[in-house]
Amino acid sequence: MKKKPLILITNDDGIKAPGLRKLIDLMRPLGEVAVIASELVMSGMAHAVTIQTPLMPRLIKEEAGYKEYITNGTPTDNIKLGKHRLLNRTPDLVVSGINHGSNASINVIYSGTMAAVLEASIDGIPSIGFSLLDYMPDADFSHVDDWVVKITKQVLNEGLPEGVCLNVNIPRISENPVKGIKVCKQAKARWVEEFEERKDPYGRTYYWLGGRFVNGDTRNETDEKALADNYVSVVPLQHDFTAHEYVGKLNYE
Amino acid sequence: MKKKPLILITNDDGIKAPGLRKLIDLMRPLGEVAVIASELVMSGMAHAVTIQTPLMPRLIKEEAGYKEYITNGTPTDNIKLGKHRLLNRTPDLVVSGINHGSNASINVIYSGTMAAVLEASIDGIPSIGFSLLDYMPDADFSHVDDWVVKITKQVLNEGLPEGVCLNVNIPRISENPVKGIKVCKQAKARWVEEFEERKDPYGRTYYWLGGRFVNGDTRNETDEKALADNYVSVVPLQHDFTAHEYVGKLNYE
Repeated sequence: MKKKPLILITNDDGIKAPGLRKLIDLMRPLGEVAVIASELVMSGMAHAVTIQTPLMPRLIKEEAGYKEYITNGTPTDNIKLGKHRLLNRTPDLVVSGINHGSNASINVIYSGTMAAVLEASIDGIPSIGFSLLDYMPDADFSHVDDWVVKITKQVLNEGLPEGVCLNVNIPRISENPVKGIKVCKQAKARWVEEFEERKDPYGRTYYWLGGRFVNGDTRNETDEKALADNYVSVVPLQHDFTAHEYVGKLNYE
Repeated sequence: MKKKPLILITNDDGIKAPGLRKLIDLMRPLGEVAVIASELVMSGMAHAVTIQTPLMPRLIKEEAGYKEYITNGTPTDNIKLGKHRLLNRTPDLVVSGINHGSNASINVIYSGTMAAVLEASIDGIPSIGFSLLDYMPDADFSHVDDWVVKITKQVLNEGLPEGVCLNVNIPRISENPVKGIKVCKQAKARWVEEFEERKDPYGRTYYWLGGRFVNGDTRNETDEKALADNYVSVVPLQHDFTAHEYVGKLNYE
């Protein structure tokens, strides 16, 4: 009999997030599962790594085919800890999420959830990030099962191209059922008017990051368009940031 | 007479870093300069944004054509603060660094210095990150002037393609003069054996991120190759992470 695949799970909403619990429930029937997740909320931590202070992971649950660690690190730290220290073999798959809130379009660059996925791909491990378009702590994940399992099984069976990982976003629940899955491009969108200005009790000015998401991308094949049309969006991502088409065109000699 | 360009400067080694001071000295003759830099060292913070707590920037120096702010945020926060709150017009250029240590190849994904550069490019601002291949606090920057100024002037004059920014790495000083500038691709490299395992005074295991950089990329046109040959490497980067060649090839229906 073939050995069960080892699936490493993390997220950026912290170890108590309902989205993480949902993902654990969906992955356990598919293989041996190790969870390495952060004690604190790591939303917006992007690809940060902890270099100024040490990491102290703790094993908090162990059952047949299941281990759960809590850490004081970032999502990227968690993948590195799993790969290099806590697991006795390289994971066959990394999944991250299910994020409370969209990681479509430019959000991917700020996301700890997606950083974990990119980090795994650097080490050649197939990896998928799942996000739901509902950032509320009590978001309803009841409609996601089939989509998450379908995509995960296909990646377990077929793998992914070298250096490529998947960014999967799922529409929030509504009276209209999700129509299907679309493989897309990252939309060209951004955040504008980003800070609220306030005064502290001592009259000093402070700013709190907020803002408004603006998508000016009218192309048909973007993740934002697929999601607006009530499809699950799948964007293949790479950790090579080179703008290849300009390598031969720029000249600073 | 044409208005002087507004140049926004940040880094991830913190406001006191000699590399930042060098970059300020080189930029002041080229335009009006605003520095927005973090009080603390932000190495390895990648594209992290501060969303759980507020930001409180302080103006600490002001002269004709020069302002310097210190913040409690990340390099990405600093660009956002500049763009949306602290500056009275959009910068014509963002420069970040000069980083103490390489941001070539995969290092770009962990770098706060380069995150600031990518962040500016999301807002359509031409941006350049400069790094020296010497991570020591007392690194010798005396050979970098001509290269930094040459590349900066060309970007000020010609701009950059939409969505593209530059990752510039400079060899450390040696008896051999730097040979020139090469426009390159990000090498496929990674960090391995990443943690030292130690015991704390109470016998608990902890891990400290370290490790060894391994470049298995034998292509001629990479940044690592250019730097090994004593050239300044310039990699055009993009914040669109889509692996475009696989969008049409993957199918999860």
